[in-house]
Formats: sequence, C-alpha cells, structure tokens
Amino acid sequence: MIAVIKQSATKDQLDGLVDWIEGRGFKTNVSQGDNETIVGIIGDTTQIDPFLLESMDIVERVQRVTEPFKKANRKFHPEDTVVDCGHGVSIGGGSFQVIAGPCSVEGENLLRIARAVKAAGATMLRGGAYKPRTSPYSYQGMGPHGLDLLMEAGGELDMPVVTEVMDPRDVALFVDKGVDVMQIGARNSQNFALLREVGKTRVPVLLKRGFAMTIDELLMAAEYVMSEGNPNVILCERGIRTFETRTRNTFDVNAIPVLHHLSHLPVVGDPSHATGYTRYVRPIAYAACAAGADGLEIEVHDRPSEAWSDGAQALTPAQFADAMRRLALIREAACAETE
Amino acid sequence: MIAVIKQSATKDQLDGLVDWIEGRGFKTNVSQGDNETIVGIIGDTTQIDPFLLESMDIVERVQRVTEPFKKANRKFHPEDTVVDCGHGVSIGGGSFQVIAGPCSVEGENLLRIARAVKAAGATMLRGGAYKPRTSPYSYQGMGPHGLDLLMEAGGELDMPVVTEVMDPRDVALFVDKGVDVMQIGARNSQNFALLREVGKTRVPVLLKRGFAMTIDELLMAAEYVMSEGNPNVILCERGIRTFETRTRNTFDVNAIPVLHHLSHLPVVGDPSHATGYTRYVRPIAYAACAAGADGLEIEVHDRPSEAWSDGAQALTPAQFADAMRRLALIREAACAETE
Amino acid sequence: MIAVIKQSATKDQLDGLVDWIEGRGFKTNVSQGDNETIVGIIGDTTQIDPFLLESMDIVERVQRVTEPFKKANRKFHPEDTVVDCGHGVSIGGGSFQVIAGPCSVEGENLLRIARAVKAAGATMLRGGAYKPRTSPYSYQGMGPHGLDLLMEAGGELDMPVVTEVMDPRDVALFVDKGVDVMQIGARNSQNFALLREVGKTRVPVLLKRGFAMTIDELLMAAEYVMSEGNPNVILCERGIRTFETRTRNTFDVNAIPVLHHLSHLPVVGDPSHATGYTRYVRPIAYAACAAGADGLEIEVHDRPSEAWSDGAQALTPAQFADAMRRLALIREAACAETE
Amino acid sequence: MIAVIKQSATKDQLDGLVDWIEGRGFKTNVSQGDNETIVGIIGDTTQIDPFLLESMDIVERVQRVTEPFKKANRKFHPEDTVVDCGHGVSIGGGSFQVIAGPCSVEGENLLRIARAVKAAGATMLRGGAYKPRTSPYSYQGMGPHGLDLLMEAGGELDMPVVTEVMDPRDVALFVDKGVDVMQIGARNSQNFALLREVGKTRVPVLLKRGFAMTIDELLMAAEYVMSEGNPNVILCERGIRTFETRTRNTFDVNAIPVLHHLSHLPVVGDPSHATGYTRYVRPIAYAACAAGADGLEIEVHDRPSEAWSDGAQALTPAQFADAMRRLALIREAACAETE
Repeated sequence: MIAVIKQSATKDQLDGLVDWIEGRGFKTNVSQGDNETIVGIIGDTTQIDPFLLESMDIVERVQRVTEPFKKANRKFHPEDTVVDCGHGVSIGGGSFQVIAGPCSVEGENLLRIARAVKAAGATMLRGGAYKPRTSPYSYQGMGPHGLDLLMEAGGELDMPVVTEVMDPRDVALFVDKGVDVMQIGARNSQNFALLREVGKTRVPVLLKRGFAMTIDELLMAAEYVMSEGNPNVILCERGIRTFETRTRNTFDVNAIPVLHHLSHLPVVGDPSHATGYTRYVRPIAYAACAAGADGLEIEVHDRPSEAWSDGAQALTPAQFADAMRRLALIREAACAETE
Repeated sequence: MIAVIKQSATKDQLDGLVDWIEGRGFKTNVSQGDNETIVGIIGDTTQIDPFLLESMDIVERVQRVTEPFKKANRKFHPEDTVVDCGHGVSIGGGSFQVIAGPCSVEGENLLRIARAVKAAGATMLRGGAYKPRTSPYSYQGMGPHGLDLLMEAGGELDMPVVTEVMDPRDVALFVDKGVDVMQIGARNSQNFALLREVGKTRVPVLLKRGFAMTIDELLMAAEYVMSEGNPNVILCERGIRTFETRTRNTFDVNAIPVLHHLSHLPVVGDPSHATGYTRYVRPIAYAACAAGADGLEIEVHDRPSEAWSDGAQALTPAQFADAMRRLALIREAACAETE
Repeated sequence: MIAVIKQSATKDQLDGLVDWIEGRGFKTNVSQGDNETIVGIIGDTTQIDPFLLESMDIVERVQRVTEPFKKANRKFHPEDTVVDCGHGVSIGGGSFQVIAGPCSVEGENLLRIARAVKAAGATMLRGGAYKPRTSPYSYQGMGPHGLDLLMEAGGELDMPVVTEVMDPRDVALFVDKGVDVMQIGARNSQNFALLREVGKTRVPVLLKRGFAMTIDELLMAAEYVMSEGNPNVILCERGIRTFETRTRNTFDVNAIPVLHHLSHLPVVGDPSHATGYTRYVRPIAYAACAAGADGLEIEVHDRPSEAWSDGAQALTPAQFADAMRRLALIREAACAETE
Repeated sequence: MIAVIKQSATKDQLDGLVDWIEGRGFKTNVSQGDNETIVGIIGDTTQIDPFLLESMDIVERVQRVTEPFKKANRKFHPEDTVVDCGHGVSIGGGSFQVIAGPCSVEGENLLRIARAVKAAGATMLRGGAYKPRTSPYSYQGMGPHGLDLLMEAGGELDMPVVTEVMDPRDVALFVDKGVDVMQIGARNSQNFALLREVGKTRVPVLLKRGFAMTIDELLMAAEYVMSEGNPNVILCERGIRTFETRTRNTFDVNAIPVLHHLSHLPVVGDPSHATGYTRYVRPIAYAACAAGADGLEIEVHDRPSEAWSDGAQALTPAQFADAMRRLALIREAACAETE
C-alpha cells in the first residue's frame, strides 16, 4: 500500500505520519520526488482501511498495491483448484463441464428435460426451487418439494444437482437434502450472512457475480466462504449492469481470463442470464468457452413459452444439443496446449 | 404492457397470440401500422414476465407501460407517507430530519458524538453495531453489545436510533432491543429473505439503494417490505456505481425528485457513502437537500483518524454544525411554497 | 411509437392530443384499459422527438417501437452487406478477415511486422499515422509521412490498409493517398462532421463504437455515413466503459450477435483495446470469433516494450501466429452450418 | 508513478528495469517488502504511457501518482480562474452566472425568450444554431443565419452569447461573427481536432463533459485547449451515462466539488440535459448550485411543445423566474463564508 503525500506537508507532519504507521506494526519506505512524495507501507496491509488513511490531513491519496484476497489468490496457490461436485464430476483444472436444466423446477417435465440435457452431454443438472424475483408478486419457486424433485432427478440420472439457496436459515435443509452444489445468486453475492453460512459447510458453492460487483469484490466474496473453511468455490460470470439495454446484462467476457489470472478457482459462464434472449445464448456460450471458461450454466426448457419464469432465455433441447457439439470443438481449438 | 409483433408474422399467428393472451384473462387491443403491429395487453400485467412473452416466435419486443410496484406507487397513494420513528420524530410530508452519528459504534465516544450532533440539530442517531464489510478480515462490528450502547445513548438523548440489520435471524433481536429504525444496507437491498423479515414487523425500515439498483428495483424492494404488511419504509439514495473513480460512488441526485414523483415514500440522502471523502460530504449534503430530500444521513466522528471504519468520510462535530446551519436555509430556499 | 397517457387526463385533453398528432400526418390508435391508456402513433415516427411528446401535460411516457435507423437496419435489407476493401479482400457475408499491425506507424519496423502478420494469415494491415491521445503531451502520430509508409507496405504486400482519420479536413488527403479503409475511432464515433465527410466518399469506413455508445447509437452513427451515400460501413466493437477496472474496457461480446440481428453490416471485434493487456488479447479474440464476428482487428508488435504507444496490448508475431491457427478452428466450429 | 513488481522477478531483472527507466532520464526508488516490491519513478512521468510499462515481463501493475493534467491543475495554479465572457460578465472566482435560452434558435421567438430570461436574472444567452443530433434525419439547426439571430439578440440585450461549434472548419466563422463563448458538446469532448482549433483562439470555451468521460479525461480535454494557448475554459457537468433509465442521464453532482478541488477552472452545471424532463430541471439546478457550481446553463422556452428539439426539458419563463429567486438564496446559504 502506498500513500501519496500532499506537497504542502511539512517534514514534521511527514515524520508524524511515518511514526503513526510504524506504531501499527508496519515498515515504511519514503520516496521523495520533485512533484510527489510517496510513503510505501510494508506488511500485511489487508488490515488497513485505505479510506481511513486518506482522512489524514497530509495524505492526498492511498493506493492498494497488493490484492486484499488471500485464499482465493493464485499468487499463494498457483495450482488450479479442482472442485469435486459428486457423482464423479469435477470442475476446474482442465475439464469442461456443462450445467443445464430448467430455470425453475416446475414438476414432471424436470425429468424429461434432465434426460435431454444428459443425452446431449451435460454433466450437471440445474433447476431453481427457491427463486429470487424482483417482484414480491412473481412466482417464488416450489420450495422444499422442488428440492426433492431435483434430488430425485439427480439420483436417477447420476448427475450432481446445482440449485440456489437464498436464506442462511435454509442452508441446513439444503445440506440435509444432499444438494451437490449450492448456488449463491447475483443479488446475494454480498449477503455476508449467507456467504458465511455456506462457508461453514463443505458443499461446493457456485458463486455468481453481482450486477455491479468488481472482479476484486467477487474474489472477496469467495474469501468470505473460504475463510469459514469451505475451499470449494466455483466463480460464475453472469453479466454485469451497464448502460446498454439491448440485452438484459452485459456479459463481461474479459472477466474469464482475468479471474484465471488472479485466482486458482474454477470459473463458469452463464450465457442465459447474461443475455436474456434465446437468440443470443449460443453465441455467448461459445464466446465464454473460447475465452477459457471451465464450464457453463445454461437454461434449457422443452416448451419455453410455458416456463414459469425466464422462458425467454431458455434453449430447446435441440438447440442445446447443437451447442454442445460445437462447444466441444471450440474448447479443443481455444484451450489445447500447443504441441 | 405492449407487445411489438414481427413484420413476418402471419394473420393466423397474430390471432393465436391474441387468443393465448386473452386465455390468461387479459383484454387486448391490436394496432396495425405499415411498419409495426402492436398488441396492447390490458389488465393486471404485473403477473406477466415480459421476457416470457418475448420468447414467442412472432414477438419482437415487449414493453411494460405501467409500473410493477403498487403499494409504493404514488398513483395509488397520492399523499406523502409520514413515517413515525418514535421519540416524536417523523420523516416525510414536509419535515426535514437529519440522522447523524458515527459509522461504527466504538464504545464511550458514542455518547459524546451523539450529544454533539443533537446540539447541532440532528434529530436521529445512527451507528453501526453490525458492519457489512467487503473483506472478511475487516472489523465486523460490536454486535449485540453495540446495540445496547446505541439504545442507551438514544434513550439518554431522547433520539430515535437507526442501525443496520444484516441477517434475517437478527431481526427479532433488533425488535427486542427496541431499535427505532432498521437500516437495510446497499449490499442487502435485494436480499429478499431479509426484506420479508423486516416486513413482518412494524418497525420503520431505512432502505438503501443498491450500487447497481435502478430506481424501479428500489421501489420493488420497498414493495417486498410493504407487501408483508409494514408500510413504514424510508428510501435512501447513497450513490451508485459508475465508471467514475474520483469518488467512492456517484451520488444520483436525480433520484431524489424522481422518487418523489413515482412514490409517496420519504427519501433521504447519504452524502457520506456517496462520496467517500470528508471534503465532499458537505457540498453533496447541500445538493441532496436542495433537490428536495426529506432528510439526510451523515457520519460524524470527533477523531476521524481513530475511527474503526470509514473515518475518511466523517465530518467533525464543528463541520457538522456548520452544515446544519446552511441546510436549514437551503431547505427553506428550495422547498418553501411560493406565496 | 406509443404514448402512455396519464390517468388524470380528461376525454377532451386526450382528443386534443390525438388531433395534434394527426395534424402532423400520423394515424393513431387509442387503447383504453383500467389502469392505462395508450395512444399508438402510426407512420414514419423517426421524425418525432420522443422527449418533445413527453412534454405534453397529459403524456406520462413515450416509447419508441420501431428502430430509428433505416439504411443500417436488417429489416429493410435482410442480406448481409459485403464490403469490398480492395486487394481482393471483402468483409461480411460469411468470410472471416483479420486486420493486424502495429498500433502506430513508427518507421522501418512496419514492413517487418506487416510481413509477419501476412505470413500468419492476416488479410489486412492496420497502423496509426494520426493517433487520438487523451493527453496533448503524448505522441500524436507521424502524420502524412506515416500514411505514405503504410501505403507502401500495403502495396508491397498486396494488403488493404486500415488507418484512422480524425479530422474532416484530412479526409481528402486520405482519399488521395488511396487509403483502403478509413477508421473512425471511439472518441469520434459521434463526431457528426467527420461521419458526414467520410460518408461523402465511397471508401469503406471501419466505425468503432464509442466508450458509452449504445448499440442503437452506433447504428445511428453508421446511418450518418450511409445517409451521405457511402454504404460501405464496417462496425467494430472495441469495449465499453463500465465500473470494472481490471481491464481497460469491458468487451461487450453480446454486441456481436445483437448487431448481426439488428443490422446487415459486417461486425469486427478489437480485443486489443477492449482489454489493454497482452495476456488477455488472445482469449478475447477467440471469444469474439466464437460469438460470430466477421473479423478482428489486432495489434501486433515485434518488440512491444519499444512501441511508441499501446505496446502493452500488442501480441508478438509468434503469439499472433498461434492465435490465427486457433481462430480458424473456432470460426469453423462456431459458425459452420449444421448439415 | 509507481511500478509494482512481480514476486517472481529476479534481482537481475529488477536491476535491468531500473536501468531502463533511469536511461530515460528518471530517478527511481525501490521499496522492497515481503509481499511486494515497488519501484517509484520520479520525474515528469506525464511522458510515460503506463500501459507500455506494464508490458514489461516483471511488472505486475503501474499506477499513476500525479495527475497528467498541468495547466488545468489547481496544484500549479491555486487561484480560481475567472473567465471574462464579454459584456461585463465573468464566470468563476465567486460569482454565480446563469446561461439561459432556447435549445435551438428557431427565429423570432429567440428575442422574446431572451428578454424573459434577462428579466429573471440570467446574465448570458444560450441557443443552438448547429445541433448535434443522434439521427441524421433530425433537424440539424439553422446554421449561419441562426448565429446572426443570436448575435443580434445578444447585442440588443447586452448579453454574451454561448453557442455550440461542432466542426473545426466552422471555428473561424464563429470568431468572425463575434460569438462570446464557444460551446463544445458532450459528443465532441474528445474531438481533439476541434479542441485544438478552439484552443488557437482566445474566445472562452464552455467544455461539456462527455457521457462516459472521467473527471480526469475532462481535465485532459481542457488541457488540449489550454496547451494551444487559450486559458479561458469553463467546465460543464451535464450528466453521465449509467444503468439508470428513469432520467436521460445521471447528473454527477459529485463532480462539482471534485472539479473545484482538482482544478482552478470555473464549473457550471446543465440540469436540462442531465435530466431530460422539465419536472426535474429545477431540483437539479438547485442541487448543482448548492454543491458549489459557478453557474448553470438552463433551457427555457415559452411554448415548449412547439420547440424544434428538446422541448421536453425546457422551463417556461415563469418556472425559470421562480428558480432564479430560489437559486440566489441557495447560493448564499451554501457558499457564503462563515463569519
């Protein structure tokens, strides 16, 4: 961490600041130029609030130099993390896994859709039993019965189940039911009570990036889960909010290689929520794969116009099967080691 | 709600769509132009997911015409809501209230700061006992003991206490302790489990706008609280996330008159979090007041460089007192009725 | 275009508005519901300023239903436009072209880099002779001599040259020199004087999307060029400005399929400016290709740390050659017709 | 400027980098910690492209410590700049000036509106003769005849005239006609050819912030004008582009005190374009004034529904007169020195 000092600072003031910093157990290094004086602060500066330091009279600006995330940081853990999701499926470290299924669990069609996505090559099953909805008047999901249907389908097809948990009070239930991967939705990505609660389990967590979350904040949210003892975090880019309105969100494809650079955690892309329109889901799925994602989460529905929510962004099983064929080729082309 | 129909649609397809809509209990109105055909959908369209309708083959685009929020909507409740916060202090409907205090409750200095802000004209006391922090390694607040200190200070000075609740499991405790106003922070603004839980009480809720929340979504979050039976919602603009990095957030001052136009709920501004720097807090406080806010929430600390968090954006008691004098004049100038 | 009418409007006021609209040569269609009244306005509404209509007392909101762009609109021109760039190279309509070269023309190394990119499969040569720089104190490009060097290199290697024009007064010079494709940079994307000037020529125009330009505005900028008579417009997504700071810009990969859906013009991606870091250029190039781009523009430099500008985002010739091999496979995988 | 060095760097590599930097005439200061090594670069680093330095293998990140703007920088010019706009009107340094008039010059009503705004206290007259319009099919302004009408009105009422120039080829005409203040619109805020051209005159320049321009970039644009020799720059905040759609733009009220902190140039606010709706213009005008703006630019029209453009955001003369009365009081309350 560095502090840029105002030109108006006197020698005494500068010495006072240095003493204050060193009194907190840090070493300092002062670099004095014609136009600027910089105090380098050496030590574990994750403990310092940079805004606090900026409140000092003589400090003009403070800049963090090292990342505040540790457990999620590739610097301290250079090898890719591989998350075991059960049923023999692992994510990260070179494989490519596709999580597919309906947006919401609606009943009997779940098994039909699950069979279709498995036949096309999906390795994990998704479906929402608890739905975060912008409006309290919208359908909020089936709840516990939905979880049962999901677990039955996962069991029958030998696929790990990924489903969203929204309330820290529900985490124990999800664990009891045997949910394979707990998803944290974009709106809960800084719900620290929930992050801590899933962090206390060892169940893999699929952590979606919030609408307005920086990459660093996503890694800090992962840090909340990991600091409680759960290392099994899968990051998910699902679109950020920008000024563009032709799509529901803007898929930040840059985030995929950036996350791989900064962190050892696996990264998946969600082209369904990132676009909001069926017609754009496949191109964005291909893009995420080409950019190096370790997997994708895709909504599939066999009769989209009857879906209870988000039908507009679901692929049909036929579209999904076409996508799976192409994804395998793209993955090979983009990611194969050069001989 | 209107659906714009693709030019390629046949008469039969259009009839089919109209039947499908009317079969769900809505009336329709078809307007046919040379370049466009529009189907107007008449009835309570808050039940329809616009993205679902867009999944129909012949639908090009769907646009909502009426707002999806009801209880928070000024159209159905033209009079300003006045929220009684206890200790004789009400917000909304023409008064101007200032909520002030330290960012975090730290101990003995709380009472000293509370006295100073009351002397300067603040009518409500703020302070955080539970702190949402981006990093799990940062200080997370005093917890229950902090609540006790707050309630003691509020009792001694006869001021309502505003403090943040982060976990639905803590709501009962906050009610037991007698917290006057429960604050929902920006990161929890779409934590629907928490919104519902505070909605089940009758304690006033200060609802902060999320970093990337549209004004409509803020009103939908208020709707979550209100739909559970709690009408006492105070909205708070605290800055949104944009590309600008010279300030911590961008204070969306436009939101103040827009919220007053769309909703009957009181609106306060938080210039401390919206800027992140002491030097900008006062100008932005004045701006929020001039734009018609019903109140402000301002961080005050008597020794900012010792504050445990966010000291960089706190005013000193002397700065706060200066601000209060000016705010009274600005409020009068901007909002007094023309004779 | 539709106008949503306030509930408070009287029958007389509504009739008055309808008369006013019809008096301007439009037809209307009034749809009356319990909660909303909508006036559909039928005719060429590109002439109407929606904000003007919203100034009417009884109008609550106005929404455009048809796109304001015409010549760039796929609805009126369903076939892909193929732009002939000279030297036998065309872009759009199914081919995939890569434009490569140094950021700035620096002198002798231009020909060396040009040979390398051609050997690796690039079909067009890029290089800046006039450089838009945020700072007036930064290097601003070689000017006319740089153009000469570019044209010589293009001639020698039989490659069309793409280079940026920044001033309407320079357009004639660019035409005289025989520049094959004139590039309009992001900062000039709404410089209407410049757009008109290049529109008066028949030289192909590579139009970069501005930092904060919506997709609709990009198409309106293309419309400026096309309305002057030049149909040869190539659109370029090069990253938009968002809150994320880990990359220079956020590459809006969604824009590629959206532009293909809305317009018949070819679309290329610029992964160099969209990321700002060499290490991310290849993954984003692959992503743009997988999403269906008709081509890419990539910066290549043989000694990046000596480049006069933007060296940090340039690929080496070896990295570029590796990318070209993979791009060919990705293009085939993502875009080949299903048998 | 500081360069953060990768942990993997060897001593030799670090020495090599230091040599390279010092070879370019800078001094260095190396600060070595357990987790980070930082090289401070001392000297006039405005010449260095930080992205270039980041391309070095061992460099992890580069951060600018000093601002790249010089002539616009308050550090090197602590006193407020006062711009003389002619007709006895100056802006900056403690006064408060209101620029008012119609969006476009339309003909005879210009004089009527000008009289009304002058009677209410406006000191400068605005009106557009050349209009930047998103669509080439929209009305583009009266051109030279509009300039004549403006100059006549300004002469008759003894008010300086502010009007937009869009093309470097028109600057000489504007100077010939005697335009008092040349406005650079948001879309041309990084049109460097135009900035240089107005920089070659001594006519005051009202420089609007672009939709997606950072505060630093706005100051760099001012630097373009000033580096050509014209010190008479007035900065204008007119709203930035964000995800919020309830208003045309988001007025970045924070920018007002930030610009005053960073620069000595006068700052005005444009609440008309920042909101897009008449109903929000007055609250935002008050907010800008309360935040310390040196002036405002406001659109006024006597029959808004007949205006040729942007009528929806114009105040009537009566609304404007009410606003002027309140603005005087707000200015006094917010900005008067404490006795």
